[in-house]
Amino acid sequence: MTEKARKGLIQVYTGDGKGKTTSALGMLLRAWGQDMKVAFLQFVKSASSICGEHRALQRLGIEVETVGAGFTWVGANLEKNRDYSIELWNSVKEKINSGKYDMLILDEFTYPLKFGWIRINEVRETLQNRPSGLHIIITGREAPQELIDLADMVIEIRQVKHHLNKGIQAQPGIEY
Amino acid sequence: MTEKARKGLIQVYTGDGKGKTTSALGMLLRAWGQDMKVAFLQFVKSASSICGEHRALQRLGIEVETVGAGFTWVGANLEKNRDYSIELWNSVKEKINSGKYDMLILDEFTYPLKFGWIRINEVRETLQNRPSGLHIIITGREAPQELIDLADMVIEIRQVKHHLNKGIQAQPGIEY
Repeated sequence: MTEKARKGLIQVYTGDGKGKTTSALGMLLRAWGQDMKVAFLQFVKSASSICGEHRALQRLGIEVETVGAGFTWVGANLEKNRDYSIELWNSVKEKINSGKYDMLILDEFTYPLKFGWIRINEVRETLQNRPSGLHIIITGREAPQELIDLADMVIEIRQVKHHLNKGIQAQPGIEY
Repeated sequence: MTEKARKGLIQVYTGDGKGKTTSALGMLLRAWGQDMKVAFLQFVKSASSICGEHRALQRLGIEVETVGAGFTWVGANLEKNRDYSIELWNSVKEKINSGKYDMLILDEFTYPLKFGWIRINEVRETLQNRPSGLHIIITGREAPQELIDLADMVIEIRQVKHHLNKGIQAQPGIEY
């Protein structure tokens, strides 16, 4: 492939269905198989909720940062999520500008945007000025229109049928 | 988790969007992180089209079988796809009945069903009689209604916007 053809893409996985983070993990695995330098950056999620993926990524030697208080949006936890998100976004900006990465996953990044903790204008500017070969993968529900406009590829993941609606418990290796 | 709560699920990732196989790879990675025994079984795809994922899975020591002549549905290639698919399905049945696996991915399995190479009744019977803890993940476009009825979870992946429509070439680590 010629240098000219190497173009970093912005991909967004959104929608109400399960599979957004899972898709991002798959992207990460495929890129890792291509000897790319990747990092997995999780907003909002608490580290305890994602043990299966963390153990896998640790074994692969993939860089992971997970910050957040979980999917809670009240009181102290809301504030923690906001502060952690801003901190992680600063770390993301450093990684982008370092020129060292081929792919960065910003998991659940739509939430800090939705809550206004991180401004979309700053995100747009940072992403538009990134190194030309760097892929950015963003996941999360309710992707704002400005993010969709910015993306090269947008995938909506729609839940058609789900076992959790049938009273089956969350399963290791499936949900976490 | 109690033994009672361990239930193998049938999940289907379908729809016209990119991310079905990617999601399956993510499931595989997460399950591998939980020390589950997994295998990745690819129908129809030709081995040359999927080097990134293969290299990654090989490094993880995950069992992969890929058979097929690629997404071609004419003449000798159609026949090859049919024969390979039937052969791989026989191997899948053995794996299911062996009781040794925690998760099997049947990637692009909707095609052999759609073309009638493998009968849905046989699939239904095999899956319904599988070991109770075994997760089955099926991907592919146009999942037949009988498969959807059989599944615990169905996710439709819908393409909202795609860079290949904008004249950007397929990228390593993204498409393959």
